[in-house]
Parts: sequence; C-alpha cells; structure tokens
Amino acid sequence: MGGAEMSFVLKSFSYLIWGALVMWMCAGFCMLESGSVRTKNASVICLKNFGLYAIAGIGYFTLGYNLMYVDVSGLIGSFQFFVGPSEAEVALMGCVDAACVEAAAPAVVESGQSEMSNWFFQMVFVATTASIVSGALAERVRLWPFFIFTALLVTLIYPIVGAWTWGEGGWLMKRGFSDIAGSTIVHSTGGWAALAGALVVGARTGKFGKDGTVRATPPSNIPIVTLGVFILWLGWFGFNGGSVLARGDAASAVTMSTVIVNTNLAAAAGVIASFFVSKPVLGRRDLFATLNGGIAGLVAITAGPTMTEPVWAIVIGGIGSVVCTLGIRLLDELKIDDVVGAIPAHLFGGIWGTLAAAIATGANLMVQLIGVVSVGAFVFIVSWVIWAVLDKMIGVRISMQAEDIGQDAVELGIDAYPEFVLMADSNLTEDD
Amino acid sequence: MGGAEMSFVLKSFSYLIWGALVMWMCAGFCMLESGSVRTKNASVICLKNFGLYAIAGIGYFTLGYNLMYVDVSGLIGSFQFFVGPSEAEVALMGCVDAACVEAAAPAVVESGQSEMSNWFFQMVFVATTASIVSGALAERVRLWPFFIFTALLVTLIYPIVGAWTWGEGGWLMKRGFSDIAGSTIVHSTGGWAALAGALVVGARTGKFGKDGTVRATPPSNIPIVTLGVFILWLGWFGFNGGSVLARGDAASAVTMSTVIVNTNLAAAAGVIASFFVSKPVLGRRDLFATLNGGIAGLVAITAGPTMTEPVWAIVIGGIGSVVCTLGIRLLDELKIDDVVGAIPAHLFGGIWGTLAAAIATGANLMVQLIGVVSVGAFVFIVSWVIWAVLDKMIGVRISMQAEDIGQDAVELGIDAYPEFVLMADSNLTEDD
Amino acid sequence: MGGAEMSFVLKSFSYLIWGALVMWMCAGFCMLESGSVRTKNASVICLKNFGLYAIAGIGYFTLGYNLMYVDVSGLIGSFQFFVGPSEAEVALMGCVDAACVEAAAPAVVESGQSEMSNWFFQMVFVATTASIVSGALAERVRLWPFFIFTALLVTLIYPIVGAWTWGEGGWLMKRGFSDIAGSTIVHSTGGWAALAGALVVGARTGKFGKDGTVRATPPSNIPIVTLGVFILWLGWFGFNGGSVLARGDAASAVTMSTVIVNTNLAAAAGVIASFFVSKPVLGRRDLFATLNGGIAGLVAITAGPTMTEPVWAIVIGGIGSVVCTLGIRLLDELKIDDVVGAIPAHLFGGIWGTLAAAIATGANLMVQLIGVVSVGAFVFIVSWVIWAVLDKMIGVRISMQAEDIGQDAVELGIDAYPEFVLMADSNLTEDD
Repeated sequence: MGGAEMSFVLKSFSYLIWGALVMWMCAGFCMLESGSVRTKNASVICLKNFGLYAIAGIGYFTLGYNLMYVDVSGLIGSFQFFVGPSEAEVALMGCVDAACVEAAAPAVVESGQSEMSNWFFQMVFVATTASIVSGALAERVRLWPFFIFTALLVTLIYPIVGAWTWGEGGWLMKRGFSDIAGSTIVHSTGGWAALAGALVVGARTGKFGKDGTVRATPPSNIPIVTLGVFILWLGWFGFNGGSVLARGDAASAVTMSTVIVNTNLAAAAGVIASFFVSKPVLGRRDLFATLNGGIAGLVAITAGPTMTEPVWAIVIGGIGSVVCTLGIRLLDELKIDDVVGAIPAHLFGGIWGTLAAAIATGANLMVQLIGVVSVGAFVFIVSWVIWAVLDKMIGVRISMQAEDIGQDAVELGIDAYPEFVLMADSNLTEDD
Repeated sequence: MGGAEMSFVLKSFSYLIWGALVMWMCAGFCMLESGSVRTKNASVICLKNFGLYAIAGIGYFTLGYNLMYVDVSGLIGSFQFFVGPSEAEVALMGCVDAACVEAAAPAVVESGQSEMSNWFFQMVFVATTASIVSGALAERVRLWPFFIFTALLVTLIYPIVGAWTWGEGGWLMKRGFSDIAGSTIVHSTGGWAALAGALVVGARTGKFGKDGTVRATPPSNIPIVTLGVFILWLGWFGFNGGSVLARGDAASAVTMSTVIVNTNLAAAAGVIASFFVSKPVLGRRDLFATLNGGIAGLVAITAGPTMTEPVWAIVIGGIGSVVCTLGIRLLDELKIDDVVGAIPAHLFGGIWGTLAAAIATGANLMVQLIGVVSVGAFVFIVSWVIWAVLDKMIGVRISMQAEDIGQDAVELGIDAYPEFVLMADSNLTEDD
Repeated sequence: MGGAEMSFVLKSFSYLIWGALVMWMCAGFCMLESGSVRTKNASVICLKNFGLYAIAGIGYFTLGYNLMYVDVSGLIGSFQFFVGPSEAEVALMGCVDAACVEAAAPAVVESGQSEMSNWFFQMVFVATTASIVSGALAERVRLWPFFIFTALLVTLIYPIVGAWTWGEGGWLMKRGFSDIAGSTIVHSTGGWAALAGALVVGARTGKFGKDGTVRATPPSNIPIVTLGVFILWLGWFGFNGGSVLARGDAASAVTMSTVIVNTNLAAAAGVIASFFVSKPVLGRRDLFATLNGGIAGLVAITAGPTMTEPVWAIVIGGIGSVVCTLGIRLLDELKIDDVVGAIPAHLFGGIWGTLAAAIATGANLMVQLIGVVSVGAFVFIVSWVIWAVLDKMIGVRISMQAEDIGQDAVELGIDAYPEFVLMADSNLTEDD
C-alpha cells in the first residue's frame, strides 16, 4: 500500500471518528436543553432533539447534500435525490480478488477520501444547526411545526448557505470568505433561524413582566446541563479538528493538532471570562452564563482555529464569551426569550468569530462582513417567512393552557420524572 | 514502515477505538434501563449493568473467546483458559533495539491485526448481548441469578453461537450464513435469552390485569433514557463500522464509510417510522416507541450494512422499526412483560435484519432462515433450562414484598434518588 | 508519503483521539461527584469540575508544560510562558505549494509527533489530577480557594512531579522510576493533594459523631454516579492506551492493544473483588464500593499495564480494589472525610499500582518505593502549606450555616433540581 492510499484511509477514518463525536454533540444539546427547561417540558425537548437528528440524517441524504455540494453554480447546487458511493467505489467494493482491488483502487484513492465518510462528516454538522433552534424555542413551540421547520432547515436553508460558502463554485467561496469549521455557516445559521423563530413564536407567558422585570425559570436538572456542555466541548474537537485533515499527511496532522489545542484554549478562556463578567453584567455569578461562555468560546474559534500562536485563541474565545454574556442581557432588554441562551452563544459568538478569523487567519475583514451579513439576511428572512407561514397554517405555539400544564403532559402524555413530587407552581404567569 | 505494517497498525487502532465506543454502549443500556424502570428499582439496574460488563470481560477472557474462535470444529471451539498476545507479538514487545524489531515485526504483521485488539473488539460485543437481558427482566429478577446467568451467557451460550457463525470452521459459516455485525449473533441471542428469562421469571405483579388491561409503569427519568439511546446510536458506529475494516486499505475504508452511513440512515428511518406508527399501533404517540424504533432500525441494519445504495438502509431500518412497534403490542397481548421493549427491538428487529440481509448483501435467504431458527432454538432452550434450574435452586424472582418496596431498598439498601420525595404509590398491584 | 511520515500522522492522531477521551473523564468525575453529594451541593460541584478543566487548560498552557518538559535539570524545567507548534511546524503550516511541503516536512516528521498533539495529551492528564481533589473535598470547601488551589496544582505541583518522573533529565526518571501512565504521577498526586486538603478543611459537620459513629450521607443521584464511572472506564482506554504509541508502528500497536485489554481486565477484576469484599469489610453490599473498586482497579494497572500475560492485570486490579475498600474503612477510622472515596481509590490504589509495576514490568521495587515516597512527601507537604495559607488568608471552608443550607443556595444561588421537593432534612448535624 502506497502513501496516497494510506492518506486516503487516514482521512476517511478521521472523518468517521471525528464525525461520530460531532454526532454526539446532539446528545449534548439534548442534555443541555432538557436540563435547562422546567420539569414539565423536559420530555418533549428530548423528543425534539432526538427527532431532529433523524430528520437531519434523512433530509440531508435525500436532497440537502446535493444542493450544497454537487455542481454549485454560485447560489445553489443540484436538485437531485440521494447520495451514495462513487462509481469507482462501488466497483472497488464489488471486488472479490486482489487483482480487481489493485485495478480499482487508484481511481478511488484519487478522490482523497471516501465519498460516504465525507457525507457523514457534513451531515452531523447540519444536525448541530438544527439543535441550536430547539434550545432557543423550548417550552412553547409545538412539536409538529418544529419538525417541519427542521426539515426545511436541513434540506434547504442550511444547504444553500453551505453552497455559497463551502461548495466549489459558491459565490462567497469565490470571494475568499473564510469560515473553516462554520462559525457563520453552522452556528450563526442556527442562531438566525432561532432568532426568527423566537420573534414569531414570542416569549413564554410571563417571562417579561409588564413592569419590565425579567423572570428566570427554574431549570429542571443542573447536572445534565453540565454534562451536555461537556459533551459539546468533547464533540467540538471533532467539529474543528476533523475539518482540517486536508491531505492525511504530516502537515495536516500538525494543523489538526494546533486546531484542537486552539479549540480547547478558546473554550477554557470563555469559561473563565464569563465566570468573571457574569456578576457585573448579569448581577449574579451565574452557572449558566459560565457554561454558555465555554460554548461561546468554542463558537468563536470555529471560523479560524488554525493560528500558530495559540495565545490568540485565548483572546478570541475570551472575547466571544464576553460578547455572549452581554448578548444574554441584550436579549432580555429586547424582550426576546431564548431559553438556553442559544442566540447569544451561537449567533453573536459566531459573528464575532467570523470577524476575528480575519485577524487570526488573514482573511479579508470586508469579505467576512459580507458573508456574515448576507448569510444572516438570507437565513433570517427565509426562516421568518417559514415560521410565519407555519403559524398561519397550523399555529406554531402551544396554547396558554398547555404552557401552564406543560408540553410533556399535553403533547406527549409522559412526564420526564413522573414519580417525583414537584413544587406546586413554577409557572411564569404573573401572580396578579 | 511498509504498507502491510501500516495496515496492521490501522486495523488494530480501528478495533481499539471503535471497540471503545462499543464498550460505551454498556453505559447506554444502563442509562436507558435505569431511566425506564420505576425509581425504586433504578439503583439495582445500575449495579446489574455495571456488573455485567465486568463479568463479560472476565468470562470472555477466561473461556468464552477460546470456545468461540480457537480450533472450531463445526459446533464449538477449544476448552482452554485465558488469552494473550501471540508468541510473535510477545517477542516483538520484548525487543529493546531496532534490529530486533525489524526481525520480529514481519511475523506479527502477517496476522493482520494485533491479537488483543481483536479480542477487545469481540469482548465488547459479548457485553452488548448481556445488556439486552438486563433490560427485559428489570424490576423483578434477583441480582444473584442475573449475574450467574450472565456468566453462563458470556462464557458458554454466546461463544457457542459465535463458533457456529463467526468461527473459522463453524457449521453455519460453512453454509454461508451472513450476519456481518451480529443482528442474530449478538442481538437476537440477547433477545432469546431475555425471552426465556421473561417466561420463567414471569411478569411484574399487576402488569397484566385480570380484565385483560395492560398497565404501563412510570419511568423514573426520561432524559437519561434519551441519553442512553443517543449513546447506543453513537456506539453503533463502532459496532457496525468496526466490523468491516478487513484489510486496512482503501477498499476497507470505503466499506467502513458506507456501513456507517447506512447504519445512521437505518436508525433515522426507524425513528421516523415509529413516530408515525406508534399512534395507530399503540394508541398513543409514544416517546419510548420512538426511541425503541431507532434502536430497532440499528439492530435491523446490523446483519447487512454494506449495500452500496443507501436508500435500502432506510427501507430496512424503517421496516425494522415497524416490526418492533408491532412486537411491543404482541408481547402485551401474549402477556409477556419486557420492561424496556428489548425483545421487540433486539429479537424481532434482529430476525428481520438477518432475513433482510439476504436482499441487501445477496446472502441465501434459506441459509439465513436456518441460522435464525437454529440460533433461536439453541439459545432459547438452553437459556430456559438455565433460568428454570436457577429458579429451582435459588429462586430467580424477588418476593412480592420486595417488588412492592423496591429492589433498591431490599437488595441493595440504597435508593437511586434518596432525597427526592416520591409519589405515594407507583405500584402495579391491583387496587382491589 | 513514506513510513516515517505515516507514523508521525498516526501518532499525532492517536494522541488527539485518545486525549479527547481523557478529557471526557472530566465529565465522568463531574457526574460521579455531582451524583454522590447531597442534592443541596450538586450544582457547585458541577461548577468546580467544569471550572477546573478550564483552569487546567490555561494554567498548563501558560506555565505548567514548560516547567514539566522543557530543559529539565533534575528537579524542574523551564520558567517560560506559553507553548506552540515548533518552528519547523510553523514553517510547514505556512506552505502553500507542494514543493514547500516536501522541503519542510522532514524536519517536522523527525520529532515523532506533532508538538501540539503531545501537549494536548499531557494537558488532559493534569485535569484528571485536579478532578480527584474536588471529589474528596466536596460539600465543604469554598469555591474560590478550590479554584486557587487548582491553579497552583496544575501550574506548579503537578508539573514539578512530572519533571522528576517524565521529563528528560528528571532525577527519578534517571534512576529508572517507572510509571507508564501515572498511577503515582497523576493519581497519587491528586490523592495526596486531596488528603492534605481534607486535613486542613476538616470533615463535614456531623460526619463523625462524638460516639464514634460514622454517618453516611444520601447521594443525590445514583444513575449519574454510575454514568460517571462508565465514562471514567471509557476514558481510561485513552489514558493508558494513548500513553504507549511509542513509534506508530506494529510494535506500538501490539503494545497499545495489550495495554487496553489489561486496563479493562484490571477494572473488571476490581469490580468483582469489591463486590465480594464490601460486605465483610464495610458491613454492607455497597454500590459505591463496587463502583470505586472498578476505579481502583484502573488506577492500579496504570503504572504498568504492559504485561504480556493479562492474567496479572486481573491480580493487580483485584488487589487494588481490595486495598481501596480497606482504605474506605481506614479513612472512616481516622475520621478523615472523603465524600467520594477519592483518596482510597486514587492514592492507595496508586501506591499499590506503582509497587505492583515492579512485578509486572520489571521495574526496581526500591526505586518505585523512593518515587512513591518522595512524590508523596513533596505533594502532601506543599499542598498542606497551600491549603493552610489559603485558610489563614481567605478561609477555605464554608460556614456552618452554609453547610446547613447547602453550597448551591449560598455560593451560587441555583439549586441543582430546584423544582423537586426534597426530604425535610438530610443534614449530618447531630440531632441532639
């Protein structure tokens, strides 16, 4: 086996194993969200997170991937159904003797990595985008409209953004827009879609009092929130690290190692920064803000994690975390309800990270800004239209009574912890 | 280092890293089961799952592996104790200079992968089989008989099935029985053992009312059930993907990638199918059925995940999920009590998957059927005898009083959530 | 690509992927500890575990690594700030054409693995050491002093121990001290630091009654304790397995496989041994002792996991588990309060494992003993001084009132499960 074939094997394997860790991030979002919502809504959010990963897998297989990567002509790829191994790969898999393998392998090796390993790695990224939406809109968006929106997000919205930026021939890629693992493409896209949803669906009843007060809701389960963030941190090594094994050679290995170290440093800096700023900004030392600060650090480093002086990762992650904490406060002031702080972490952190990549990796700041704005405008407007149409057609929000009783009982008929006695009332409804 | 040595390293590494993810499935079963049982039994099921992995490791080391793989003569391998690196490997590990390494390496490389990496990958599969049993029999089988049965399952029953099917010289292997990652060998074996146990141990008191009603028990913790299923899904990439790195070359990498994609698609299809059919079949939109549908999809694709048209994975996984949902209803009608739906997912899903592999990978349908029936008959009968003998000798079932109070208090003396106030009564005993 | 480059890629990749699993152990400790403490302290321990990983990452980057590995002259390395890719690596990463890569790669490949992959793998070990301390001192040590101690542990104490033993030129390394993955260096170091802290901070109020009784506290959440131990077990494959890929060749792959199998066997033996001895030693069949027995088995095999007869791993792990169970009782008799049994598992298990390595891998028993004693004396004394100084300056212990109300409410303002109704009183204070 020669060096090129070895690189092929390594790169395919790298996509698969790191991709598996990125898939694991869906469990992280699920735990984070399920522990953050009130107990009466903790089952439905599990179903949403579990279901969205299934929808992402089927939707990206059916159409999304082809729209994003096949024959991209500036704005969009190909409307063709399904994906599969290449012809050369099918021929190789069909071999039953060594001579056939020897004849068929070179054509396969040429493509750099196996088609399906690449598809798998791309697919788990889509799922991340969908996970961001579910957290922001928890406790009030209905199950069906959420799943329908998710299906459109993973088959159309995300793939179109991806075609612009990561597809060969995409208009932003041609202009040099640089977003290595997706601060904008994955995280801000999810954040914009969530913001549009939050505006259409509205805040939870009682979240924002008439007198300007903001009421916090009791989370159901702090340890699984923490577990969820640890899972995200772990998965992010795959998210960023897996994105850079360009050739399966020494240069790639060095880059991957640097990226993973930078990713870790940015997250660590984010944790520490938010630990310190949460008191002045939010008025309390806040566990959620600290956890979210780690996530914001990760989001921020995602666009440009390749810098060779890792101290910059600390700067970028730390600032990303401060941006996120300020964003939590900003949303409160704008009376936009985001249950888990997904918009501050993924949207605001993602914008910062995409601009910071201009410093870190030498991308053009103006092009980065164009990318941020055009992706933002596209995703926000299309998402807003979809949410609004869904609202007209089937209604996106549960009834006030369902909000009062809890989605678990009303939409699913199963409480998350049915045997545990709960506090009499943890509703946000005003007591007057 | 030449190509053959590189393949050796890659293949060994692949077994280790994917094997580690399969080990992780034990934690998945543990969370799934602990969250599914009532609060009063949630500690004991943790101990069972933790203990069974330890027993599997020791039992398969002591005897199981040799029975399954060493000098298999049709029905069974060798009754010899312990495993270890090969002589050539020991010689290589003892080298202290480069000349020795150079001399010793070729004999090692020849074997394809390191002996211990292969053993590790096989061992974690055994543990999966044992995990299936614990879930079905939860809340009523005593700790000791469960551990004794587990020890016999991992040292005798499973290895004999494995010798027939995966051992060089096994009678089913010689006939061309095809079960790539173990729909029958791992999952149905666990399912048959669980079914035999369920019949001997009997249903939980009050599960099936005299008037024909079936009573559902409240699960203790839905988020960790969901976490458990996410863990299983993640681990399954190792389960199926790790099973096909035949040579550590490009052909293997292509196959592995295809397998992992098919695995994911089958699971996703299973989730969506069960989400839709749970209402007509079970009378409710059911979170457990949806989660179980994902598992059934995974079980179904396990026998033949190598098809090059991934759309077939959707078909196989989707049908597997429907089979599982129908199976949940069938067990209720037969008054067989399976706490987590392990038998529908792993046994029924496994049978379907093994037959479906005939379509997917071109295996002979009749041979597949012979394999399904003979493995089923063997495992079910032997398991039934063992459970019955254990019942005679030491009793396999906790007392009705213990069932009422809970296994945690009676068998272990530690509640799962001792500080939380619980609902007064979540027993299944009839109220008359 | 030649064999040397391939080895470089494989070794770097191995450090990254196994290192990611070791990072995951931090989540394991977090779940283990959060589930073991009483409900009223379960949020703060999450913050401690999350924060310590961030501190470890920044501290080891800023100073720790250089103190441990750069120009070690017997006792200590270099006081220089920050780490980064080597000059040769930076040059390689800066290449934009194939000719440059070809010219720059050889100087990089020569070093064996990428600098940052090595740093990453080292960093996650530091975090493990810090995690051990948090568990032992849970429910009473204040947040700030804990974080300050952690910062000193990861930037000074651990790196100095590491310089002695793993740094080229360290005085214990030169004498032949052998501790392959760190039974002493990582685990006992954490254990000694925890012991010093436990003595300075003191036992929880009421833990040890005036009449000599020892009171157990109710754990908050058994399933996540179990999950935590499963995570540790999984992570340990990376911990021990990742430590031995010396050259990325067949010999290394064989060793890694053997190490992972030995690691698993030692843990399994530890589980079974403690299951049996917990009743005679502790007077009850104990789930915690069984879980801890698995951890102790893992700690014990960590110093010398390379033996080619795996049955010895069973012996070492089994004895380590018994040592741990006896240690739990010993601490009770000495009235030293260790909430999760971290000192018995990591300190006592680590001492045993380091001595056992003399049998297993042929290290000199006297040198091993010198290593154990000198590391122990250094870590214990320095840690004791730091804890004592912190106590004088800012106070290391929460107030009795805070202990009564719970750290979550007092230090953080957020309960772990705020909606669940709890038992009226789970305090340890004497009822008179």
